[in-house]
Amino acid sequence: MDLEVVTVGSELLLGFTIDRNTADIGRLLAPAGCNVVRSTSVPDEEEAIRNAVLDGLHRTGMVVITGGLGPTADDITKKVVAGIFDAPLELDSDYLEKLERRFAKLGRGPMPSVNRCQAEVPSGATTLRNPRGTAPGLWLEGKIGTAIMLPGVPVEMRGLMEGEVLPRLREMMFTGNSPDRVTKSCTLRTTGISESQLAENLSAVEPLPRSVTLSYLPGVDGVDLRLTIKSAAGDEAAEALDRAKAILLPTLCDRFYGIAPIALSEVLIDKLRDARMRMAVAESCTGGMIGARLTEIPGASDVFAGGVICYENTSKVRDLGVPSSVLDEYGAVSEAVVLAMAKGVCRRFGVDAGVAVTGIAGPEGGTSEKPVGTVWLAARLGSETRVARRWVPGKRSEVRKRSAQGALDLIRTMLAGD
Amino acid sequence: MDLEVVTVGSELLLGFTIDRNTADIGRLLAPAGCNVVRSTSVPDEEEAIRNAVLDGLHRTGMVVITGGLGPTADDITKKVVAGIFDAPLELDSDYLEKLERRFAKLGRGPMPSVNRCQAEVPSGATTLRNPRGTAPGLWLEGKIGTAIMLPGVPVEMRGLMEGEVLPRLREMMFTGNSPDRVTKSCTLRTTGISESQLAENLSAVEPLPRSVTLSYLPGVDGVDLRLTIKSAAGDEAAEALDRAKAILLPTLCDRFYGIAPIALSEVLIDKLRDARMRMAVAESCTGGMIGARLTEIPGASDVFAGGVICYENTSKVRDLGVPSSVLDEYGAVSEAVVLAMAKGVCRRFGVDAGVAVTGIAGPEGGTSEKPVGTVWLAARLGSETRVARRWVPGKRSEVRKRSAQGALDLIRTMLAGD
Repeated sequence: MDLEVVTVGSELLLGFTIDRNTADIGRLLAPAGCNVVRSTSVPDEEEAIRNAVLDGLHRTGMVVITGGLGPTADDITKKVVAGIFDAPLELDSDYLEKLERRFAKLGRGPMPSVNRCQAEVPSGATTLRNPRGTAPGLWLEGKIGTAIMLPGVPVEMRGLMEGEVLPRLREMMFTGNSPDRVTKSCTLRTTGISESQLAENLSAVEPLPRSVTLSYLPGVDGVDLRLTIKSAAGDEAAEALDRAKAILLPTLCDRFYGIAPIALSEVLIDKLRDARMRMAVAESCTGGMIGARLTEIPGASDVFAGGVICYENTSKVRDLGVPSSVLDEYGAVSEAVVLAMAKGVCRRFGVDAGVAVTGIAGPEGGTSEKPVGTVWLAARLGSETRVARRWVPGKRSEVRKRSAQGALDLIRTMLAGD
Repeated sequence: MDLEVVTVGSELLLGFTIDRNTADIGRLLAPAGCNVVRSTSVPDEEEAIRNAVLDGLHRTGMVVITGGLGPTADDITKKVVAGIFDAPLELDSDYLEKLERRFAKLGRGPMPSVNRCQAEVPSGATTLRNPRGTAPGLWLEGKIGTAIMLPGVPVEMRGLMEGEVLPRLREMMFTGNSPDRVTKSCTLRTTGISESQLAENLSAVEPLPRSVTLSYLPGVDGVDLRLTIKSAAGDEAAEALDRAKAILLPTLCDRFYGIAPIALSEVLIDKLRDARMRMAVAESCTGGMIGARLTEIPGASDVFAGGVICYENTSKVRDLGVPSSVLDEYGAVSEAVVLAMAKGVCRRFGVDAGVAVTGIAGPEGGTSEKPVGTVWLAARLGSETRVARRWVPGKRSEVRKRSAQGALDLIRTMLAGD
């Protein structure tokens, strides 16, 4: 089944907000056999919303709309879509009561009167329960097609998609005329190798099954390779993807670390857990990013002990035992210092595994000998330590992200080598 | 001047990549008086790209297209747009030479042959220099309008917009018939207050100037209030925005912390620098996120000393001096422990300012007394310590983000109170 997405909000086009909803909706729908064939962002303006929703309904008969359902005056989606379907707004007194109970429970005083309009729904619409917010989702069907309206706040949108919209779509597909064909996809994640080098390596191997499309998705943390098969029977799709994977994996060697959406930090935590090891971090220019990435993963406490953010040199000496003489002789961004940091943090936390990063993230602080982007990474596993020097092009945020990813990858490859 | 954006990539609709380019383009163009009136995402498919670009050209006469210019087989944007403009692809030998020199300089061996197609450009197109990558930008004009093609990699796209596209657009607007009117906007950032409470507070004050639109942009870190004025003369726009700000600010009290794009961490660093204070962090459930946020800001080293990621309890005792008896009696997530963490990290780093966080981020680890989402925050300034208990609804990532923001805000309000 094909459908379109329309995201509403002037902030998306003025650039104050990044539209994460389109990607979330696509990721939730694809495994259910629904393809988002186009996504459109429009400002909070009646004509723009109306045109985009009508275009989408004409092309596919089904549009998921996010945004513009809030309690404030710039939220006009409901009114505009009600107009398209010729379904006047009516007060849903059951919903109003629920809303008032919700505010009473939060204990923040009586419900602000602006929220009352959120209980108005287009005539004939189904109200979709939104446990995380005050705007209900709305499902509206008519001769022209189906419009599904969801709040723009990502966590509310996602909750409604999972709890209300997906079950209804699945039911439609089983009972309706939509063929039982699915779009499947599988993404191989790599890091530390360029897009063109990957393409060159892959050009030397046998061709992938014809039904499978390969896309390169480069990002700061590495290049993802996405394999997609569209509108195939379930078994056939899975087999074709498996064949394609078997062709690709040998060319990726140790640059492949997992199947999306797994993060490198999660791969590493799993490996450490298997090896019954615990880990600590010593972070200078990354300032806590590596610890933050590791602790994103539920259950990180099985393997992650903690770390030292040794942003100032005093902390490198006091907390990690880096000798002052080494700092003086080689400078904070040096092989000798990063080695001492990795050893020191393992000693302090009494763990077998550790990573350390020191670098010049910029924009200030570079010299001709050590320009901005110079980074030293170290990883320690048992009594072995590996060290790597990187020169990372780009801005401060890019230098820091690539350094964090590089450090995690350094210890991952050490663990894989065992 | 109005224009549309088309972002190309199946990964955007399947949800493997979030489209950040639309927001970036909007943010870069608005101050120059160019309005993005619609943005469309389409898959890497000839017909979809062709239709979206043609629709945009018909509506506004100018389309900025990102993505699909890479060296691999799924990159077809250039071919499709060349077809629309009836401009066959030709080899640009100057560009090919530049590309070969670039590869030689990187020292990664000879240029992969797949990159050669990147030197093919539509007949009559202007090549736009891309110092960060191998695909040039392309500017193509014809009877049907103007198409500007840019690579999809965000850092390359941004570099081309700033270095090549904006100067050309500004020149067009000064020499062409476009009126010298601008869209200006200003975003007031708040944290720790809900959207509906803000709306209720604002409903009690005098109305904003009629030309100014107010939008509420709620997010995990707080609610942004965006004021926009469209197509006004420069002076008039600035005055109207100033009047609107003067009306809003008193209703926001200490929940307002700055004008976007400033981050709360940057506001805090500026305040600490003014107060000649240095700061450290003690992070349990946030695992380094607060340190990472502070060190995102260039020049953070003026005020940020470092910190301890005390994920395991052993580290809270050893590195921060939290008494074991207090941990045993009250548990790691308690007022007594967070207070001891804040004091301990200030003592260890010898600084006047510190924040500490301990909480249950989930999904495991909650109890009936301390459910998932229970968080204790502390901030210390000189000899004063403030502590706050929060119950944060939501998933692990949301609990962590709100905790980090809450801790930064706690010490910001202490500094503002002086």
